Amino acid sequence: MISNNQIKQYKKDMKFSYTLGAFPTYELIKAKHDKVNKVFAHSRYSDYDNLQKICLQYDIDLEINDKIISKISSKENCFVVGVFEKYSCDLDKDKAHIVLVNPNSMGNVGTIIRTAIGFGIKNIAIIEPAADIFNPKTIRASMGALFKINYKKYNDFSNYQKEFPEHEIFTFMLNANKSLDLKDMKKVDMYSLVFGNEATGLDDSFLDIGTSIFIPQTKEVDSLNITIAAGIGMYVFINTHL
Amino acid sequence: MISNNQIKQYKKDMKFSYTLGAFPTYELIKAKHDKVNKVFAHSRYSDYDNLQKICLQYDIDLEINDKIISKISSKENCFVVGVFEKYSCDLDKDKAHIVLVNPNSMGNVGTIIRTAIGFGIKNIAIIEPAADIFNPKTIRASMGALFKINYKKYNDFSNYQKEFPEHEIFTFMLNANKSLDLKDMKKVDMYSLVFGNEATGLDDSFLDIGTSIFIPQTKEVDSLNITIAAGIGMYVFINTHL
Repeated sequence: MISNNQIKQYKKDMKFSYTLGAFPTYELIKAKHDKVNKVFAHSRYSDYDNLQKICLQYDIDLEINDKIISKISSKENCFVVGVFEKYSCDLDKDKAHIVLVNPNSMGNVGTIIRTAIGFGIKNIAIIEPAADIFNPKTIRASMGALFKINYKKYNDFSNYQKEFPEHEIFTFMLNANKSLDLKDMKKVDMYSLVFGNEATGLDDSFLDIGTSIFIPQTKEVDSLNITIAAGIGMYVFINTHL
Repeated sequence: MISNNQIKQYKKDMKFSYTLGAFPTYELIKAKHDKVNKVFAHSRYSDYDNLQKICLQYDIDLEINDKIISKISSKENCFVVGVFEKYSCDLDKDKAHIVLVNPNSMGNVGTIIRTAIGFGIKNIAIIEPAADIFNPKTIRASMGALFKINYKKYNDFSNYQKEFPEHEIFTFMLNANKSLDLKDMKKVDMYSLVFGNEATGLDDSFLDIGTSIFIPQTKEVDSLNITIAAGIGMYVFINTHL
């Protein structure tokens, strides 16, 4: 149990984190109620009755406390905060995976998680160093979808690969051997779609791991934004594997 | 000519705007040198010689002025600023178009422009009210790709449509009649891909304009992010029309 005097502005090394706002807090409670420690509401929150109802349903402490909310969130329009313990998950061995290698931006990680859930991909591996998946900014960018995924951190891609030898690996790279061709997609049983860092992409060692794929694009941009590339990759794989 | 004492923080109603940073300023000069009024460099800018070279080449005023740069940009690491006149373009009648209806976020408009240029789509119509395309934030999000597109504003979709009666219209909507199906894409000569506002999408009147399209997605998210949906739409259309 986390006591109120332990509550302070979020930092990466804390054992718990926060959802800022009603929407992600509801998503947290619905998906991971056993990880929720407490919920705080602002005295001006207009939909308190519904919040109280769901907290009662899952036996979660709910407290009206304006001071604590302003301590946690710098935004003025934050009226609900969820406090939850960080957790780790095992990835499903028989499902498609997304692997993010050294992602740098919390906004991008959140957006990719939201897209993955939109396409029914629920397993995400993150190779460290990486943006903090539990930072409230990541949670906000994911629109609460973070709580619907299985995620696991690895300190090296080879550790991930050893754990899932059955997954066919597809690495998205600008200097790939093969282009993402709608007319030439063969069906594979289980796959991992691997995306690199926003600035540096995947290094050349990834050219020899599985099949490297290039999304055809003009030379007039450095590259597509990583969240767009990931969205296109997921869409094409999901829809050629229906 | 804009004099130094006219220079102040950017506002939407100004007749000129700014590129903040060396990268978008180079993109501006290369693509639209006739619109550039002046370039300012910070005394600590490390690559002044190259900047001077390209300014000389296009006969553009270059001035070292730390005060003006800090007046325009609140970011500390901004060392180059381009000042340019806002402009409007005609759209190509014989090329594919993107139409953004009431987009709200400058970041999203910039990202969609970057993606469009990545896929070789150079004509973008914007239906107002809309995020300011010339705000430095939009330019930054586009990574300078803004200067490579033809863009034109319309106050109503019907005005756009009257101007381009030959374009086949595809509207991306959550309640569309047809899903974006890789196995069932027919080739059309000229097309307009139409995307709505981030929060509200396209209203139902767009169901009867051309073909409405839905990107298959789970019910676990409200919708895909608009930049992801636009990226997938462009990728699929471009690659079935090669």
